Amino acid sequence: MLQYQLPKGFMAGAFSGGLKKSGPDMAVLYSSHKAVSAGACTTNKVRAACVDWNSERLGKAVRAILINSGNANACTGDRGIKDSLKLAAATADKYQITSEEVLLASTGVIGVPLPVETMCEAIAVMTPLHDTPTALKNAARAIMTTDTIEKISGFEFHSEGRTVRIAGIAKGSGMIHPNMATMLGFILTDAAIDPSLLQNLLLEAVEESFNMISVDGDTSTNDMVLVMANGASGVSITSKEDPACREFKDGLRAVARDLAVAIARDGEGATKLVEAKVTGAATLQNARTLARAVISSNLVKAALFGEDANWGRVLAAMGYSGASFNPRNVTIHFSSAAGDIMVMDNGTPLEFDEETARQVLKSQEILILINLTEGSHEASAWGCDLTYEYVKINGSYRT
Amino acid sequence: MLQYQLPKGFMAGAFSGGLKKSGPDMAVLYSSHKAVSAGACTTNKVRAACVDWNSERLGKAVRAILINSGNANACTGDRGIKDSLKLAAATADKYQITSEEVLLASTGVIGVPLPVETMCEAIAVMTPLHDTPTALKNAARAIMTTDTIEKISGFEFHSEGRTVRIAGIAKGSGMIHPNMATMLGFILTDAAIDPSLLQNLLLEAVEESFNMISVDGDTSTNDMVLVMANGASGVSITSKEDPACREFKDGLRAVARDLAVAIARDGEGATKLVEAKVTGAATLQNARTLARAVISSNLVKAALFGEDANWGRVLAAMGYSGASFNPRNVTIHFSSAAGDIMVMDNGTPLEFDEETARQVLKSQEILILINLTEGSHEASAWGCDLTYEYVKINGSYRT
Repeated sequence: MLQYQLPKGFMAGAFSGGLKKSGPDMAVLYSSHKAVSAGACTTNKVRAACVDWNSERLGKAVRAILINSGNANACTGDRGIKDSLKLAAATADKYQITSEEVLLASTGVIGVPLPVETMCEAIAVMTPLHDTPTALKNAARAIMTTDTIEKISGFEFHSEGRTVRIAGIAKGSGMIHPNMATMLGFILTDAAIDPSLLQNLLLEAVEESFNMISVDGDTSTNDMVLVMANGASGVSITSKEDPACREFKDGLRAVARDLAVAIARDGEGATKLVEAKVTGAATLQNARTLARAVISSNLVKAALFGEDANWGRVLAAMGYSGASFNPRNVTIHFSSAAGDIMVMDNGTPLEFDEETARQVLKSQEILILINLTEGSHEASAWGCDLTYEYVKINGSYRT
Repeated sequence: MLQYQLPKGFMAGAFSGGLKKSGPDMAVLYSSHKAVSAGACTTNKVRAACVDWNSERLGKAVRAILINSGNANACTGDRGIKDSLKLAAATADKYQITSEEVLLASTGVIGVPLPVETMCEAIAVMTPLHDTPTALKNAARAIMTTDTIEKISGFEFHSEGRTVRIAGIAKGSGMIHPNMATMLGFILTDAAIDPSLLQNLLLEAVEESFNMISVDGDTSTNDMVLVMANGASGVSITSKEDPACREFKDGLRAVARDLAVAIARDGEGATKLVEAKVTGAATLQNARTLARAVISSNLVKAALFGEDANWGRVLAAMGYSGASFNPRNVTIHFSSAAGDIMVMDNGTPLEFDEETARQVLKSQEILILINLTEGSHEASAWGCDLTYEYVKINGSYRT
């Protein structure tokens, strides 16, 4: 993994709040300047207390994000709301800012109250934050649940002699007994950017990254992607026409996509990263809906685990996606570093060598390439295979 | 399994058409009188040739349904359409009826042409049909794919001294390497009934039975439920106000529900039948959407395999279902023959004894009872647990 620089004016740190049996389970992302915030939160009607807390603050100036793993603080009622207030206040005290300048994120078991006193004490005594790549990596590790690897991405570009950095960390699709997957993403940048423009750019980036991955189709109560932009680079972006905006937009997209793909690759029990790429679609919406349906199909996912070039399941998933397309125009390839095999040509199933197909599908990264030959839009979605290990992890199977 | 009587004027038979390695793989359901037909077919945009064939004939007078397992005749292009014509013609020749009076259903591998000449020869020489329970059972067995047991149901009622019978067979959620699940249901009755009334009653029954089950969320290219009503009982049903209509409707619902639940219970790799029952809903649509979401969640399904009373996943699935409800009003129980445990009361998670919960979930039939306390509507959905065996069956895993 590359070592990513934190953008200017940001620091990070990790510490233990007594949530996990061992190791750091809390992280702080901190800006020494006031930062503009933006965010995309779960659409689940059952929302954790931290989601409600953030919703009232996004778009305003913030200074810190406090994240904990090990407990989602979801379905915890009034107690959960009060605990969120306490955590924000403890963080504010520590850094001499206000509670309103603190965003919160939690992941882990639901329905269990936070050990909030222990957490607040840990915040009070935590060691100083740092602006090093190691500090960012430690934060990325502290927010992991059943993740097997930390997820970090970065991007930089130059504008009028100044350097703008974007850095992000994420976690998912982990699950803590007895509970649920949560996808969290945090992106920091030292660009100065108009809050509503930042929010728009984030939603665009999320649409083609975090919203295009699926591990098991279950949306959590805690999913969120937050951005802080503190302006410390001295580069200001005020409108889409701004010369630096295109580069910033590309960078934000690249970081969001990197993190999203890393989550799909690390899906619970996964042995393969799978990309479904739909090209030649009449509309972007069609391309996205079809790519997502393929990547979300249990049957497709199980077939890929079995290294079985099962184009029938791909076509069937497209068929029930709700998107409009003509099955008779569809061309399907399975590709990987080991080769490429065409299995359907303009709606006609092709004879193919099973052994070659198996070689292609033996790879750890599989591309399912679908051409609709109906237009010029395209979209990719990322997922993983469905394995015994997935069932084991999520069944907490007692052997 | 009970022995179900065929309704008057119907016969059934099973024979081998050379599709499976051994045993019968074709079945005929035949009426000695012209029968009114009704049907519900897959909403998948990729439809098998037989689905298109039937769509033009439903509502009209028919005499026979020819079913084969082992090959779905889907994604087989013009050849598939011609093969459907040949099968209908061969069946018509055999029974001295017209091709237009034959409905067709197929299940099995897709993208592979039918061995249509062998099948037509087998139709020509097949042994006589019978009106016995054994003949119906043999037909139910012949249409199985990875089903582990045949699925049959029956119902009878009396009207003005006459007996009306309804009998049905179904298959699912089997899958044939390298392909897909298909759910097929066939219902026969000797009631005389108006075709559009029959179609309406069927759709109502399907809404609360076949449309309320999920094994893996994948809708096949071949799913269908067909009904033939031949009038041989002498009991005529012409409107919803007809005294016999209520009993017929109840019978059709009971048979459809029996068959649907049998499919869920026999879901691939399943060790448990799971019913999610939502009560106290503000609307029927909400109750159905919520029940289906719970039963379809991979996380809920894996938890039940692990005998883990994971109410958090139940609530989260409800939250992303799209249905409106207030999480703070929700009460959740897990029940089985071994006992009952309340895990959430009016939105508040309850402490419960893990050992008692495990005893409840050890049963082969689990009820998840959800009360929204918002209204008087209710709905049930049926599914099964997600197991290693599901992954194995659908991964065709090469060990």
